[in-house]
Amino acid sequence: MSRVLGLDDARALAAAVLAAHGTSEVNARATAAALVAAEADGLASHGLSRLPAYADQARAGKVDGHATPVVDRPKPGAVRVDAATGFAFPALDAGLPVLESATRALGVAGMAIANSHHFGVAGHPVERLARAGLVGLAFANSPAAIAPWGGARPLFGTNPVAMACPRGAGADPLVVDMSLSKVARGKVMVAARKGEAIPDDWALDAGGRPTTDPAAALKGSMLPMGDAKGAALVLAVEILATAFTGAAFGFEASSFFDAEGPPPRVGQLVLAIAPDAFGTEGVVDRVETLLAAMGEEPDVRVPGARRFAARRHAEAEGIAIPDDLADELARRAA
Amino acid sequence: MSRVLGLDDARALAAAVLAAHGTSEVNARATAAALVAAEADGLASHGLSRLPAYADQARAGKVDGHATPVVDRPKPGAVRVDAATGFAFPALDAGLPVLESATRALGVAGMAIANSHHFGVAGHPVERLARAGLVGLAFANSPAAIAPWGGARPLFGTNPVAMACPRGAGADPLVVDMSLSKVARGKVMVAARKGEAIPDDWALDAGGRPTTDPAAALKGSMLPMGDAKGAALVLAVEILATAFTGAAFGFEASSFFDAEGPPPRVGQLVLAIAPDAFGTEGVVDRVETLLAAMGEEPDVRVPGARRFAARRHAEAEGIAIPDDLADELARRAA
Repeated sequence: MSRVLGLDDARALAAAVLAAHGTSEVNARATAAALVAAEADGLASHGLSRLPAYADQARAGKVDGHATPVVDRPKPGAVRVDAATGFAFPALDAGLPVLESATRALGVAGMAIANSHHFGVAGHPVERLARAGLVGLAFANSPAAIAPWGGARPLFGTNPVAMACPRGAGADPLVVDMSLSKVARGKVMVAARKGEAIPDDWALDAGGRPTTDPAAALKGSMLPMGDAKGAALVLAVEILATAFTGAAFGFEASSFFDAEGPPPRVGQLVLAIAPDAFGTEGVVDRVETLLAAMGEEPDVRVPGARRFAARRHAEAEGIAIPDDLADELARRAA
Repeated sequence: MSRVLGLDDARALAAAVLAAHGTSEVNARATAAALVAAEADGLASHGLSRLPAYADQARAGKVDGHATPVVDRPKPGAVRVDAATGFAFPALDAGLPVLESATRALGVAGMAIANSHHFGVAGHPVERLARAGLVGLAFANSPAAIAPWGGARPLFGTNPVAMACPRGAGADPLVVDMSLSKVARGKVMVAARKGEAIPDDWALDAGGRPTTDPAAALKGSMLPMGDAKGAALVLAVEILATAFTGAAFGFEASSFFDAEGPPPRVGQLVLAIAPDAFGTEGVVDRVETLLAAMGEEPDVRVPGARRFAARRHAEAEGIAIPDDLADELARRAA
């Protein structure tokens, strides 16, 4: 059973939960907005289901709910945000406007977030850039889940990457957003709870062997999308997301799902490019040309379109929250 | 049967072939160096086997062998190179030093190449950046080979992506470099020549159905690595590589393999980041920490290592060229 909440009510509830667990008002508001936005986009795994763990981490000090992100700009095209072991969303809110203005001035710029936490939906910050008229690329790492190709020990996160670019005439941006595991780890957890086997190309056991046993998979590692090529991409993203700020690699990072251990201190890198940076007019029209060619085949979808449809629906009708989660949030907010 | 050529002799031979087919000395030298570098790295599909088609295209004017690339910098962080429908390698040679100095000054910068031709090994320009102490990312498109997910008509190229970063203490850079098709189209051509079936997850026929018939696959499209996720990446790379300069999309571009039609006019985008851009020391040491963790498992290889081993061997022992190709090149150089 579930109950339906309007987006404003959902944001207020989520912010109240965070505030009741040791989070400043501004940080609670930013984090609540991000979780509700994920829920509205139909991405429940990045939505309010995360809130109890977030709240517990704030209470335990694993995430500093009162952190104030520090933005500086060591080079004209390089924005550094120290999330100060707080939530990632206030750090994004603090850094993105600086990245935007640097990109408008220079054509190309980057933002690295240090001492960070769960990035949420990687498509959201690049969508924000695209709505501001810029092309965005995002790279993030996460606690260890994927082993290097040929290995058994998970070193890298499932490492989301995202790209967004503006479209013409009031259309939603094009948003490409994916984690680099073949399937989400959550699917393995669901199979484990149900006692069902998983396909043998989802995960490896702790010995690095393909497995259909979800329990063995959870002790092992997730396979990357695209096998060896995907594993090389995961490595590249791991480096891009972390190395510029000394952020923790996946194998050094604590979990996003519990309140144990030190802050995860993962990293994120966002690159932005102004469409007119290289002196060409009509860049957005070129994107429309490509999307129109894609649209000539009936079964081809523009990436991101499903999310925007879900969002429109949620804005009109609200979001459905499972009763047990809604009860827990109401209790925690009190 | 094959014969062995020293690298200097191979470069001289390749440059002579190009010069004999209407290519200026400087362009012939740059292009010959790139093809021999691919051959030395063990990447014969991007090596001297390309030379007869390159030469025919220069003679036909499909590529302008006498083009002079034009470099400008419309924004401080954005370097534009107009390859002027010449070969891509002189354009890279002209633009990379400007990208390097922009990156050192600003921390992050980008270079877009317009009116370009076959990019060769995407790992090479980013390796050059890494040897200059910078982190490099490259995105290129190529003539249509991959359909959007759910479609049958190839719109996108096999679209190589590459990333390189410097390593410590005289080590070769880390180089991640891949095309985004599941397997190279060349493998399907080999199967077609031999009359062998291909696995059913390599390609689709012209109706968008999986096929084991290489002839049907060559009339259809190649599958992307990583299925739907990979197809979304291919789309993102198609846009990044082309849109900023109005370069041709894969479905608009003529073949790299014959002298028919207008210039392909594909595009490339190279982004560069200075390791110290975000004010953090020891970025290269962090990369070494990650690679050391990877090295704890015996079957894990550092991406790019096999190429560097092949290159060392080729520098000492030369490269083996099939007799028929060597004969053809000698005849064409005369």
